[in-house]
Amino acid sequence: MTTRAELEQLDREDPLAPFRERFFLPDGVVYLDGNSLGALPREAAARVEKAVREEWGNGLIRSWDDAGWMELPARVGAKIGRLVGAEPGSVVCADSTSVNLFKVLAVALGHRADRKTILTEPGNFPTDLYVAEGLAKLVGKGHRLRLEPAERIVRAIDPDTAVVLLTQVDYRSGARHDLGEVTRAAHEKGALVVWDLSHSAGAFEVDLAAAGADFAVGCGYKYLCGGPGAPAYVYVAPRHQRTFSQPLAGWLGHVAPFAFESAYRPAPGVGRYVAGTPPVLSMTALEAAVELLLEAGMAAVREKSVRMTSLFVELAEERLAGNGLVLASPRDPERRGSQVSLSHPRAGELVRALGGRGVLGDFRPPDLLRFGFAPVYNRYVELWDAVEALGAVLAGLS
Amino acid sequence: MTTRAELEQLDREDPLAPFRERFFLPDGVVYLDGNSLGALPREAAARVEKAVREEWGNGLIRSWDDAGWMELPARVGAKIGRLVGAEPGSVVCADSTSVNLFKVLAVALGHRADRKTILTEPGNFPTDLYVAEGLAKLVGKGHRLRLEPAERIVRAIDPDTAVVLLTQVDYRSGARHDLGEVTRAAHEKGALVVWDLSHSAGAFEVDLAAAGADFAVGCGYKYLCGGPGAPAYVYVAPRHQRTFSQPLAGWLGHVAPFAFESAYRPAPGVGRYVAGTPPVLSMTALEAAVELLLEAGMAAVREKSVRMTSLFVELAEERLAGNGLVLASPRDPERRGSQVSLSHPRAGELVRALGGRGVLGDFRPPDLLRFGFAPVYNRYVELWDAVEALGAVLAGLS
Repeated sequence: MTTRAELEQLDREDPLAPFRERFFLPDGVVYLDGNSLGALPREAAARVEKAVREEWGNGLIRSWDDAGWMELPARVGAKIGRLVGAEPGSVVCADSTSVNLFKVLAVALGHRADRKTILTEPGNFPTDLYVAEGLAKLVGKGHRLRLEPAERIVRAIDPDTAVVLLTQVDYRSGARHDLGEVTRAAHEKGALVVWDLSHSAGAFEVDLAAAGADFAVGCGYKYLCGGPGAPAYVYVAPRHQRTFSQPLAGWLGHVAPFAFESAYRPAPGVGRYVAGTPPVLSMTALEAAVELLLEAGMAAVREKSVRMTSLFVELAEERLAGNGLVLASPRDPERRGSQVSLSHPRAGELVRALGGRGVLGDFRPPDLLRFGFAPVYNRYVELWDAVEALGAVLAGLS
Repeated sequence: MTTRAELEQLDREDPLAPFRERFFLPDGVVYLDGNSLGALPREAAARVEKAVREEWGNGLIRSWDDAGWMELPARVGAKIGRLVGAEPGSVVCADSTSVNLFKVLAVALGHRADRKTILTEPGNFPTDLYVAEGLAKLVGKGHRLRLEPAERIVRAIDPDTAVVLLTQVDYRSGARHDLGEVTRAAHEKGALVVWDLSHSAGAFEVDLAAAGADFAVGCGYKYLCGGPGAPAYVYVAPRHQRTFSQPLAGWLGHVAPFAFESAYRPAPGVGRYVAGTPPVLSMTALEAAVELLLEAGMAAVREKSVRMTSLFVELAEERLAGNGLVLASPRDPERRGSQVSLSHPRAGELVRALGGRGVLGDFRPPDLLRFGFAPVYNRYVELWDAVEALGAVLAGLS
């Protein structure tokens, strides 16, 4: 049996332990919801304050040049690109995940104009499904959304599949697709793949270039710790960057925005995936957070993540057996992201009660307790404390 | 001849003078570029810092409920709606102007499926043209962009005109369309109108409901003073809210985002125009700024704006005659927004030299000096100082 003392020892030996101090975390809280909203990096707070008071307040319009605001989408995109193994110049930071999905899906369908199927999972994150549905309706060329369970996706790819649209890590179960394997299988059948990395980036190593990925998007506010509603990012493989223009043609995706030309001439490369003016304050917070993750390094993050999720499963099974909890995440750490979900018929109540004890996780209907582990700030002892609290609230169910 | 002392007297009598203190403005700067980026309201800085440290840092995920983040798009939208005379429940704050244009243009074209012309001006702000072009290309139903000069727009509306797409105030000249008149003319011919209010909202009174407007969008970072890249807003007349779904169907525009349903069921009313998660930090700054403008009141703002722009024209003509400057804005204040543009063959050099003297305006190629007046923080004496500085840099041209 694991003891709390052993977990304390792991914290003392943890090479990532010093990163905890670089986050602000409230006293009395065990924060296992970084897969919904990452905690606040202290540096992000400082940078936002600087962006507000010095850059906006003092610099005013001059800061578009002097403070480098114009370069934010490309600069932050490049940093995120390093986290996800993207080729240089293939990621920009812009808009929301939903909006970026729309852009890349439209381009992907343009590339496979003779095919009509968008293949995805019923359990994909809803926005991914809605965006595909909205795009298909707008384009009106008979595209259809085909939903197949995760385990049947690869076999379901057929000659009518234009695009496979997947979130790499299932937001409910934490189950993880093999990015390289699915991409290869799709390419073999002539299909393209759009990856949603919202639950991947910042949680473990992703290597888009090595996988031969086509397109990817993801949000900035989960493991990337970019703050509430942080801007998203979009990856376009270099080979797909020039062929089509994405349909959200905005002035900041123009080759020369300040020439104010009447006709759209897209910027070279992935720059055309920027549409409007970037939300500077929100993007500034994200930049600071991504820098911190790059410093921590994804190999170390993944190593600690595997250890944490495995220990959490072990502790929950050791200490909470017979309470009706069922592991709802893959047991094999290689097959899951940085989260563990447990099912229980009264999951909603349990999550609320845990919150009352300062242990913050998520309820996902109908029956999931979802716990996310962020190795840059979570401590091993928090696993113990969370399981203890869960035991207490289970005991208190009336 | 107007004297500096007279302008000082106007400042002493100005009912909006106290608002100046509620902005941070650097010493030694005459800021006439609020039509590019509004100055920093002190309250916006304080609120952003609170949103970062208290709401994100301490509240973490709980702030979506506890700090009212979930309601931000509707709440900030409603406040902007009051500034532009929108019916309650007809504005949301979301995304960028470009992205919002895409949404409403798509819906407007859906409403007029038998018509193929999007009528606009060659001098419309480029993003408006690019977005229309991108949408037409994506939809692929033969829509064409027809460009007619501002003075010919009304006569150019014909039975093939699906949508008239106009920025109310020309970003170069400051010339202002009569919102009600153009809307009526379009409706008489069975066309719809999409208004871009980026240079209107916060600068003068707009009454969308009274004008019977169909759709409007606008940015948050100019006269609204919401900060660099502040989120934009979108207005949809109540009668157009239910008929079509906008194509950027994201999870936060779903009727029940946290039910995580596979199929998109749009939120009632304008709520469906929200797509992804709002950039909370940037939207928080905007909310504080909009509240300040509501407090100032658009009638007072417009009155001072007319006086300022008229005085600026008068001073420039009195004191800078014979220097090659030509008024490039309408002389009649009723026909212009809150800016004055002057043309000069060496406009670029002049704007740069003015910047060196702390007078910040914009250069718009090929030959415009553009000065924006924000009655909530600009002072009458600044008109004098700007004209003096312009005289000095004109004298220094070699």
